[in-house]
Amino acid sequence: MIGIADIAAARERIADTIRQTPLLSSRQLSALCGNEVFLKGEHLQKTGSFKIRGATNKVRQAVQEGAESVTAASSGNHGQAVAYIAHKLGIPATIVVPEDVAACKREAIEAYGGKVETCGLTSTQRLPRAIELAKQQNGVFIPPYDDLLIMAGQGTVGLEILEQLEEVDAVFVPVGGGGLLAGVLTAIKETRPSVQVIGVEPQLASDTYQSLQQNRPVSIGATSTIADGLRTSQPGELTFPVLQKYVDDVVLVTEEEIRQSFCFVLERMKQVIEPSSATTIAAVMYEKTALRGKRIVAIISGGNVDLAAMAGLITR
Amino acid sequence: MIGIADIAAARERIADTIRQTPLLSSRQLSALCGNEVFLKGEHLQKTGSFKIRGATNKVRQAVQEGAESVTAASSGNHGQAVAYIAHKLGIPATIVVPEDVAACKREAIEAYGGKVETCGLTSTQRLPRAIELAKQQNGVFIPPYDDLLIMAGQGTVGLEILEQLEEVDAVFVPVGGGGLLAGVLTAIKETRPSVQVIGVEPQLASDTYQSLQQNRPVSIGATSTIADGLRTSQPGELTFPVLQKYVDDVVLVTEEEIRQSFCFVLERMKQVIEPSSATTIAAVMYEKTALRGKRIVAIISGGNVDLAAMAGLITR
Repeated sequence: MIGIADIAAARERIADTIRQTPLLSSRQLSALCGNEVFLKGEHLQKTGSFKIRGATNKVRQAVQEGAESVTAASSGNHGQAVAYIAHKLGIPATIVVPEDVAACKREAIEAYGGKVETCGLTSTQRLPRAIELAKQQNGVFIPPYDDLLIMAGQGTVGLEILEQLEEVDAVFVPVGGGGLLAGVLTAIKETRPSVQVIGVEPQLASDTYQSLQQNRPVSIGATSTIADGLRTSQPGELTFPVLQKYVDDVVLVTEEEIRQSFCFVLERMKQVIEPSSATTIAAVMYEKTALRGKRIVAIISGGNVDLAAMAGLITR
Repeated sequence: MIGIADIAAARERIADTIRQTPLLSSRQLSALCGNEVFLKGEHLQKTGSFKIRGATNKVRQAVQEGAESVTAASSGNHGQAVAYIAHKLGIPATIVVPEDVAACKREAIEAYGGKVETCGLTSTQRLPRAIELAKQQNGVFIPPYDDLLIMAGQGTVGLEILEQLEEVDAVFVPVGGGGLLAGVLTAIKETRPSVQVIGVEPQLASDTYQSLQQNRPVSIGATSTIADGLRTSQPGELTFPVLQKYVDDVVLVTEEEIRQSFCFVLERMKQVIEPSSATTIAAVMYEKTALRGKRIVAIISGGNVDLAAMAGLITR
């Protein structure tokens, strides 16, 4: 398990790379749910998501230990983040993506200086290939969430929230593999344990919710939620124990609630967020907890949504 | 004509209503055009556009002078702004809109507490009706731009820019009726005349560009630019002399340049802006001036674009 010291160390290690993202307030959203609501804007983070925090912490450490290259298996935010930081640190990154990768995602990785390799259609094919490539190239494989340095890097979001907002009652965190939630939980519960930390999952990808109920990691198979960053099929081996230890609650939101929340933020707050991030807004707007009159932060994990997908979401 | 004192007075009069909007920076945009570029984010202003500045200055003054109601002839940002501030000051507002008004625009006015009245299909029908209504109701008609208090209110954007950015070489301003440009010109040229101020118009609505060339107000008839806030057919009687006196240049942008700039800001900066505001980004991105290595501000005048229109813009 990680501790608060790991997150503090991560913060120093990534300070010159990442942005301290703003806390955005919305009176309309606050009025709707009867709480004072702030959005932690990681959509305004470098590479468009929080993933650059963990990736920077991990890749920088790898370089210090002599790694000459890195690999990752992700066509999404994690892949882009690894490509960006490797390029910045002057080593090559190979990002293994599925054969049916969207052109815009391939281009984004390449624009950040990463090399793209296609492999199969499922993560069970990509993962071994990325690990194998790392071995061949005297490199290090950078996992998306189930890694202590990755978790510690993501936890810096939690530290920033506590510093930016003196009084905070609850923080809502989107849950995919659980790296962000495990990091934020550690940052918050080991410094201000009275702050509630609530995970949010799509109903269609409720692996963490079910795992916590059954007190063991449960695998749910493939899911099709529009929150594409949260389509993991089971919690991580390293992240799950942290969630078990610290999380106050995990709540579920429907696809239509995610879509409506996405449109609300677009129309009213003039911000482009990912459907994965709209889950925390949905949890707040559709009152998935009993919190009223509280000061709440919803973490917006990223803003990378391609324009075709956006058009689909707003015209449905 | 207005002077800097009028803008300073406006600033005090509207201080407790409006937001000081942020200056957003974009390294990608800066790199693209070889200048250091900042966006003045009036899309994050109350009611979603700068129009609340002039409207507040004018309506507050009207109320002080005994007005019991206000009217306006605008289904867009001006109508919403007048409805909002009248409601806040406790007097009724009637907003005259065309019979074919989009449902979302009608709803936005009503959501801000305004009464909607439909009249004809053209502004030559709506304008007299709004003026007549004001007379009947012991009220004041609030014009969209051709008014000294409106111009002074819009000018507060210019003052804020000078305060927020110590060194600034040039400011790009979208031009419709010219109220924002006249106000910003007065604010800047009467305090820091070395700062260049450049107006931006769509090629399809180049009434101000043509008027300046011919040294008299030219009317261009109806236009169909996607920059719907800039579809005025000729400069204002009060705004035009200010433009003639002070403006450094007016540049033109194409519909496709506007669309591409809109998508750039959406995808890369994660901000929702109006097509009218994308004109200033287009002028910067497509290098419509010879400025290089300079510190530039592009004014984002608003962010009110309905979702159907947005879907059309991003899938074209």
